[in-house]
Amino acid sequence: MERAIEKEIITRLCEIVGEDHVITEGERLAPYGQDALGELFLPDLVVLPRTTEEVAAIMKLANEKLLPVTARGGGVGYTGGAVPIKGGLVLSTERMNRIKEINFDDLYAVVEPGVRTYELQCAVEARGLFYPPDPASFRESFIGGNIAENAGGPRSIKYGVTKHYVLGLEIVTPTGEVIRAGGRTTKNVVGFDLVGLICGSEGLLGIITEAILRLLPLPEARRTVRALFRTMREACACVPQFVRAALVPAAIEVMDRHSIRAVNDAFSFGIPDEAEALLLVEVDGNRDEVEREARMVERILRESGGFDVRRAETAEEERELWEVRRALSDAIKRYGTLKLNNDVVVPRSRIPELIERVEQIAQRYEIFVVNFGHAGDGNIHVNFMCDGDDREAVRRAREAVRETFAAALELGGTISAEHGIGYTKAPYLRMALSEPTIETMKRIKRALDPNWILNPGKMFSDDR
Amino acid sequence: MERAIEKEIITRLCEIVGEDHVITEGERLAPYGQDALGELFLPDLVVLPRTTEEVAAIMKLANEKLLPVTARGGGVGYTGGAVPIKGGLVLSTERMNRIKEINFDDLYAVVEPGVRTYELQCAVEARGLFYPPDPASFRESFIGGNIAENAGGPRSIKYGVTKHYVLGLEIVTPTGEVIRAGGRTTKNVVGFDLVGLICGSEGLLGIITEAILRLLPLPEARRTVRALFRTMREACACVPQFVRAALVPAAIEVMDRHSIRAVNDAFSFGIPDEAEALLLVEVDGNRDEVEREARMVERILRESGGFDVRRAETAEEERELWEVRRALSDAIKRYGTLKLNNDVVVPRSRIPELIERVEQIAQRYEIFVVNFGHAGDGNIHVNFMCDGDDREAVRRAREAVRETFAAALELGGTISAEHGIGYTKAPYLRMALSEPTIETMKRIKRALDPNWILNPGKMFSDDR
Repeated sequence: MERAIEKEIITRLCEIVGEDHVITEGERLAPYGQDALGELFLPDLVVLPRTTEEVAAIMKLANEKLLPVTARGGGVGYTGGAVPIKGGLVLSTERMNRIKEINFDDLYAVVEPGVRTYELQCAVEARGLFYPPDPASFRESFIGGNIAENAGGPRSIKYGVTKHYVLGLEIVTPTGEVIRAGGRTTKNVVGFDLVGLICGSEGLLGIITEAILRLLPLPEARRTVRALFRTMREACACVPQFVRAALVPAAIEVMDRHSIRAVNDAFSFGIPDEAEALLLVEVDGNRDEVEREARMVERILRESGGFDVRRAETAEEERELWEVRRALSDAIKRYGTLKLNNDVVVPRSRIPELIERVEQIAQRYEIFVVNFGHAGDGNIHVNFMCDGDDREAVRRAREAVRETFAAALELGGTISAEHGIGYTKAPYLRMALSEPTIETMKRIKRALDPNWILNPGKMFSDDR
Repeated sequence: MERAIEKEIITRLCEIVGEDHVITEGERLAPYGQDALGELFLPDLVVLPRTTEEVAAIMKLANEKLLPVTARGGGVGYTGGAVPIKGGLVLSTERMNRIKEINFDDLYAVVEPGVRTYELQCAVEARGLFYPPDPASFRESFIGGNIAENAGGPRSIKYGVTKHYVLGLEIVTPTGEVIRAGGRTTKNVVGFDLVGLICGSEGLLGIITEAILRLLPLPEARRTVRALFRTMREACACVPQFVRAALVPAAIEVMDRHSIRAVNDAFSFGIPDEAEALLLVEVDGNRDEVEREARMVERILRESGGFDVRRAETAEEERELWEVRRALSDAIKRYGTLKLNNDVVVPRSRIPELIERVEQIAQRYEIFVVNFGHAGDGNIHVNFMCDGDDREAVRRAREAVRETFAAALELGGTISAEHGIGYTKAPYLRMALSEPTIETMKRIKRALDPNWILNPGKMFSDDR
């Protein structure tokens, strides 16, 4: 973006947040111009407000000057939600990083948007409480970004996703008003549910300046059981068996044969060759109950054709079982410099069909694919791997992605489970949503952001 | 409302839904003009569509003719959400009453809006599944109404409220477009979360024509423990003790001393005079686990000062314990012909303060008050009782309601936990929400319903 920011704007921003908190030089701008995808879009400048009032003043100014604003949390997204593809201002919430309150009796926490997910998890666990949402990026992601993207993670089968833990929000609107949605209680039906609307709105409708989050009592214990399967169908067929046993695991993670080969080749886990699928099932709760449930899981896995079944007895064994899953990201790097990681989702019984179709697609386009993810909630990460410098391979990989989206939709699912749309999936939005549905969303966007200054270029393929 | 509906409109409606499904005569209109409050507002006519296409055609016509439309489910609300206070059309969903699918493996149901909550509960329980939301009106309420009002109930402490079970919706917009929000999976971050926005929107933003609902495995067992307390503070102080024991009851119901006196006087339950509060604590889950948890609950209640503690051992004893709670509605009728039932909510640790303040308010206005509700989630039903023909008493009772709302807000809560705003609480909306927050909601309303034809006169004190 070639826009030159008027001197006046810089002066006024310095008045609002202080000179030290406005970044204008190229070198220091770069870290604010990319996310986990690594594609760089330089902002014209970066502001680092400390208070809600500062955020409101920035938005009023930006709206007056028609300056694009992109809010930024941890900057670890996979679809570019925090990246300023139209230049303008990046508003980083990194200085708004206080945990204001942890209320044990009433089971909530009040936090600023720049608190890291992991930091909140540790702080509440120290009090015997539990904040369940755990996106893979939890060590670096900010709560504000988690809410804006409605982040998921492995525990959603039992605990739901981020939006299920947001009780209240303070939001600065695109026109610079400060509004409050929800409150401190699970029950609250006063006016439209703006919390519901803002969760997952990818920073297009407002900037989150405070969040009130629902907490749970911390489960006493966790336990993991691992099993290998000769087919993906067998592995997935055991999931409804848990329902029959009235059992809801905290997580059911799955890895396909390519994932297993990858970690085996890279780290010699010694997983037998006949393993075409691997399941990791975690249960949590009261100590005795977890013991009982882990045995039940073990039995169900065996009866469903699982072999080499291992039930962790100690924290050390627990870590070992998850090692395979954690090694995966590194292990697949050897298959290509470019990873197209797509978080499709289907009703969980359709996972085997999805994976079969993805394999066919990969074969047709001669692209290596690795599938793994959350078998409990139907969310599979389909990773097409190729050489990023090989333009022909990249083109083929992108075609494979489009066909994967089509397959997920045909199977009753959709194109994004937890990464959002951002700019990378905006061209595919029409595959998933009808024209009147998109138009309804845009009407809401225009109603709240008449000048379309907040996070332009995201979600929709045009900003009108 | 004196509006005379043009002949042409009636003719066109008859073409859309068939003559048999348009009601124009006064006598048959009356049942569609009131809800649980019993205040009558006659509609000009009632239409009973069977399909989404019919609903869309009706809305297109209504939008063209600027005809007010009020969607109606079971008609059992407490704030008038389904009542046509500006006349026009009532669109009853009673013929859209099919359960289209119950998917065991993928844990969801697809239903039309006119399915009764109880009917759905029974249908899924027969399959070993569980739909947790259970508003008090569940035998008559419709799923569509539950979603529109984001209905609660006693189980919200463990299971959340209706919105936590809505995966997907088909909606007809005020301008007659058919849109789809969400889908069949818990994880879905494709575009704005219109499901989140529609839940609790009280029929102002669209008409729900289909819902995809999340189900859980049916818990094997339930168990209730009852205890009496000498003070409300003692009773409420045991709630955080459950958190310390990492225990989440399915329900914690509370009755204050006036509630206890009322049922005792009416039905001779023999509850001792020193009981100033009664708690009913229900746990559910696996059979062994429930047994263990019920004992833990019993111990915590005793240690917290509870007396006359009873733990149900059989289904019969279970029923007996809940008898007291169920008798309440009938028992309090003798205290007045008019019941102003207000569902305020506070962070649960503030319940004792709320009840103390409500008692002071009642004393000051010389109005009898009965408080009971959901101690687990802070939602107390404050019932001011008076003679409906005594205008002076009614005036005093209404003042008491306003002060109760102020007290709930001061204590960090809000004016409606599960009944919604409708027309009865619209005059109080500004007590709970700031002007910019209300204006943001209205912008959304205008964006989706430019002619403000859908459920006019509700939520906001003016329709602009």
